Amino acid sequence: ASPEAYVEYRKQALKASGDHMKALSAIVKGQLPLNAEAAKHAEAIAAIMESLPAAFPEGTAGIAKTEAKAVVWSKADEFKADAVKSADAAKALAQAATAGDTAQMGKALAALGGTCKGCHETFRE
Amino acid sequence: ASPEAYVEYRKQALKASGDHMKALSAIVKGQLPLNAEAAKHAEAIAAIMESLPAAFPEGTAGIAKTEAKAVVWSKADEFKADAVKSADAAKALAQAATAGDTAQMGKALAALGGTCKGCHETFRE
Repeated sequence: ASPEAYVEYRKQALKASGDHMKALSAIVKGQLPLNAEAAKHAEAIAAIMESLPAAFPEGTAGIAKTEAKAVVWSKADEFKADAVKSADAAKALAQAATAGDTAQMGKALAALGGTCKGCHETFRE
Repeated sequence: ASPEAYVEYRKQALKASGDHMKALSAIVKGQLPLNAEAAKHAEAIAAIMESLPAAFPEGTAGIAKTEAKAVVWSKADEFKADAVKSADAAKALAQAATAGDTAQMGKALAALGGTCKGCHETFRE
């Protein structure tokens, strides 16, 4: 597999996560009464986060349009831990959505966004 | 919920599906040895397809940037059936990916793409 293919893949996966987050915030803000759908979007984000480390193999640093910092590889364990944190936060949001607990959904969405932000600050240019 | 919010929501959900399809085709073409991840992308598409009908309520035809044809509502049952077809095709792809059956993954991805195409021909401008 070409290194560029991994970069293209992870950028698409993260873009899809962003699209799921937009859908989730519209639902959590009450713009859309789609709680059942919110759980599916949160689960989709969890699935992507669980796939993320596999999309950053050795040898795909500093190429093509990657914005991944070298620390993704020098601190690989921390990177994996951050991906797990996002996956877990997304699953917590899915549970709140399934339970129809809108107050909890708001907190869980903010917590999920926080895990994305934290990982981006450390690992993205 | 404003009609525009539903249009924005479904466009994002379908864009995320497209991103998942791009990831899947890179994997199925052997550009990326990420079969385990392929199952997650296929499951994400299935989840979105199961949510789709809820994103097309009455009163959201012909507004904002929607490309949905009026037939989405005049043939609502057929529209729902097409969404189910896509969800089922995505789940079949997820199973092939989990089984690591690359030949079957290729067939299942083509079949999934066919269900998207069929629905777009009937229901999208």
